[in-house]
Amino acid sequence: MLEIFRAYISAQGGFNNEELDRICSVATQRKLRRKQLVLLEGEICRHKIFVAQGLLKNYRVRDDGTESILRFAPENTWTTDHESLTKQIPSRNNIEALEDSQVLLWTIDDLNDLLDAIPAFKAYTDRFITNALDASYQRIHVNISYTSEEKYDDFVSSFPDLFNRVPLHMVASYLGVSRETLSRIRQSRVKQNKIV
Amino acid sequence: MLEIFRAYISAQGGFNNEELDRICSVATQRKLRRKQLVLLEGEICRHKIFVAQGLLKNYRVRDDGTESILRFAPENTWTTDHESLTKQIPSRNNIEALEDSQVLLWTIDDLNDLLDAIPAFKAYTDRFITNALDASYQRIHVNISYTSEEKYDDFVSSFPDLFNRVPLHMVASYLGVSRETLSRIRQSRVKQNKIV
Repeated sequence: MLEIFRAYISAQGGFNNEELDRICSVATQRKLRRKQLVLLEGEICRHKIFVAQGLLKNYRVRDDGTESILRFAPENTWTTDHESLTKQIPSRNNIEALEDSQVLLWTIDDLNDLLDAIPAFKAYTDRFITNALDASYQRIHVNISYTSEEKYDDFVSSFPDLFNRVPLHMVASYLGVSRETLSRIRQSRVKQNKIV
Repeated sequence: MLEIFRAYISAQGGFNNEELDRICSVATQRKLRRKQLVLLEGEICRHKIFVAQGLLKNYRVRDDGTESILRFAPENTWTTDHESLTKQIPSRNNIEALEDSQVLLWTIDDLNDLLDAIPAFKAYTDRFITNALDASYQRIHVNISYTSEEKYDDFVSSFPDLFNRVPLHMVASYLGVSRETLSRIRQSRVKQNKIV
């Protein structure tokens, strides 16, 4: 599992072997079964999570019991509850494995030590947060200005692999479109031979 | 104008007078008339902007000519096109004054010099970006899971001052709700005496 992470983080550039060893040395490896939770609403988020294999979802449960899916995290991505982790306040979100998964966990204390000790890790993390901010602004643009059809097409073209791994009702929740509307759009796209 | 910024940035903590002088010394002061643009789609964004007085909007124009409002920036907030500024790529957005405004501008080169030279400025900027990321995740949650009524109520309670300064159709664009729907909700809230 560490090999997958090491290949990922090496590809980001700027790390020597000693730094890579140090980053890997404080990671905890964990296997998750499908439907297993790694963060429960109300808990303080203790870890930043790297997904080496599998797929996780970050979601919030509304008062009426429906799920609002904030993010999907497939292999070779990070996930966490950023606000809860950095401010050490109770999380409003849950993180759950959608498939059997293998993850690596870093505590906030170990992360902060790495950020202080390894300038390349700080620079990488800064770039990562900056890119996450740009991506979230783009998602807000999609949310507020795309039609349901455009949201569907944007998701399929942006995340073709995810689209085939995630049930349609979860894609609907992620996009903020009703399940019925998304089913209708999908059927119409199948008829147009856009999906085979 | 600089006094307003100096009071704002001092309140963030961690700066000595020499550092404050240095940050202020490289700012350019500019007055904007209502409807004046400070960033035009297709240009590379050259500045990070602090709004000392007035109100700016950051928006994108869709192919059908409609505006999608990404953010409002009232006094004592920053605005920019983050992606265009940090990556020096053409902007997809416009930034325009909604009211006569007074702003301070920092170039990306001066900003980077300040970030390198003043650790407190780097720490403040990191906190700012982290908070912006958390806020944008919360906005995505609102976008994908709130009803139009809940979006309206959330905006009014989160930004009571803005609500009174911004035309309703711009609030509708910011929330991703049709103008007609938002007018109907507003009328119903007025009847319920939630707005006097």
